[in-house]
Amino acid sequence: MNRNELISLIQQKQNYLCIGLDTDIDKIPAHLFTFNDPVFEFNKAIIDATKAHCISYKINTAFYEAMGVQGWHSLQKTVEYIPDTHFVIADAKRGDIGNTSAQYARAFFETYGFDAVTVAPYMGQDSLQPFLEYTNKWTIVLALTSNKGSEDFEQLQIGENGHQHLYEAVMTKVASWGSVNNLMFVVGATKAGQLATIRKSFPEHFFLVPGIGTQGGDLSEVSIGALTPFGGLLINVSRAVIYAAGDETFAEKAGLVASQYALSMKALLNNFTNR
Amino acid sequence: MNRNELISLIQQKQNYLCIGLDTDIDKIPAHLFTFNDPVFEFNKAIIDATKAHCISYKINTAFYEAMGVQGWHSLQKTVEYIPDTHFVIADAKRGDIGNTSAQYARAFFETYGFDAVTVAPYMGQDSLQPFLEYTNKWTIVLALTSNKGSEDFEQLQIGENGHQHLYEAVMTKVASWGSVNNLMFVVGATKAGQLATIRKSFPEHFFLVPGIGTQGGDLSEVSIGALTPFGGLLINVSRAVIYAAGDETFAEKAGLVASQYALSMKALLNNFTNR
Repeated sequence: MNRNELISLIQQKQNYLCIGLDTDIDKIPAHLFTFNDPVFEFNKAIIDATKAHCISYKINTAFYEAMGVQGWHSLQKTVEYIPDTHFVIADAKRGDIGNTSAQYARAFFETYGFDAVTVAPYMGQDSLQPFLEYTNKWTIVLALTSNKGSEDFEQLQIGENGHQHLYEAVMTKVASWGSVNNLMFVVGATKAGQLATIRKSFPEHFFLVPGIGTQGGDLSEVSIGALTPFGGLLINVSRAVIYAAGDETFAEKAGLVASQYALSMKALLNNFTNR
Repeated sequence: MNRNELISLIQQKQNYLCIGLDTDIDKIPAHLFTFNDPVFEFNKAIIDATKAHCISYKINTAFYEAMGVQGWHSLQKTVEYIPDTHFVIADAKRGDIGNTSAQYARAFFETYGFDAVTVAPYMGQDSLQPFLEYTNKWTIVLALTSNKGSEDFEQLQIGENGHQHLYEAVMTKVASWGSVNNLMFVVGATKAGQLATIRKSFPEHFFLVPGIGTQGGDLSEVSIGALTPFGGLLINVSRAVIYAAGDETFAEKAGLVASQYALSMKALLNNFTNR
């Protein structure tokens, strides 16, 4: 899905909600264990109940990897089940030397057919380049993440005068390696103030924003600070949607929570247009 | 495998060679394609031919992920095939927020049973903690990597006076989160001068050193600068061993190259002891 298609999708559906399929086998309702592949059945029901209310799904690979080979079966079936109308992200946070990153890019973009993959910037340009060479796919680079640990390195002061944070240096350099058509950044919702500042420096990039819901980020604050005329945001909610209920009503409740997020986003988009 | 066992292994086998199973389906000899699982057959033959000459194997997950579900089958069979006498590393470079990193730790330490996993430090303490909570396993954190891209961020000057590189800040902080019994660092062989300096600051930690062979690092230079009385190094060679020949002699040639590295290491260990 290219930039224009993604922008159209946001305009058409009037939301920028990404639902995170962080499907933990220890948290899915008991009745699903009568199925051969409970994780896929869970995802299928969540997708059916939420697809009208979101534009994107983000698959957190860790939860599938933890289940071994069976987990990758569930992941593959899930990717295939997501409608082509939705933007599909592998939240994998990969990154290695060039010839290895090329294999990761191949895995997520070709083997599984994701639209986008998240990557870690620590190892520098040649670790990101193999992903960015796919001009019809998206590379989503970690910048300022939503967790407490972002203080340890991402927010270190760097440079001769210490006037820049590491994440700012990362964004500036990485932005020169890709384009607004194939590069996004991860910026956490729990840092709404910084997010608004970052938006001023990077007005044209899409941001993938985790941290709304269980992690405590505020949807309105984030949106007011970082929406752009083209949308510019994919706001991810995982646990607050997919674990909205732990019983047989889980999918229905997930659909309800997703529709509430979507409605809030519609209002925020309208407010933005009428500013 | 705990620290004392690892040290004993180095003393007993008189080498510190780790062989990287970066098995690329596009590079394995044609005759293996008559087997049901060519990647596993390749690894099996390489392990049989090299296990007497090394103490460790490192599985580069990217090459297996690129093959989809089948790749994870090959990975699992490979891990099971490696003798218990060898230290087995998942070179996965994972790292995410806490609840997600816990899933990655579970995947590599429990589901697949690796002794160690490589992780990226960018997201900070809570992204590493779930790995470090396994006191009977090893977390190997990226510090200064062997690739050109290490100049982009890892070697940035940080702090008020700019007198420290990012990788030094990473090592100092991370060292306080784990112990020499469950934490190692990745330090690239292509930076032999810096490696020797780093060794002075971190005399007790094991370093996993990639970059020998195809990437151009020098075994003697690295060893003279960074060996310690307990060994302290796992030097990885991947392509130079596993692709030593591209025909039916591949395993035999891999064994030969591995034995040459092992002999060089024996001499370097003896020189160290006699200093």
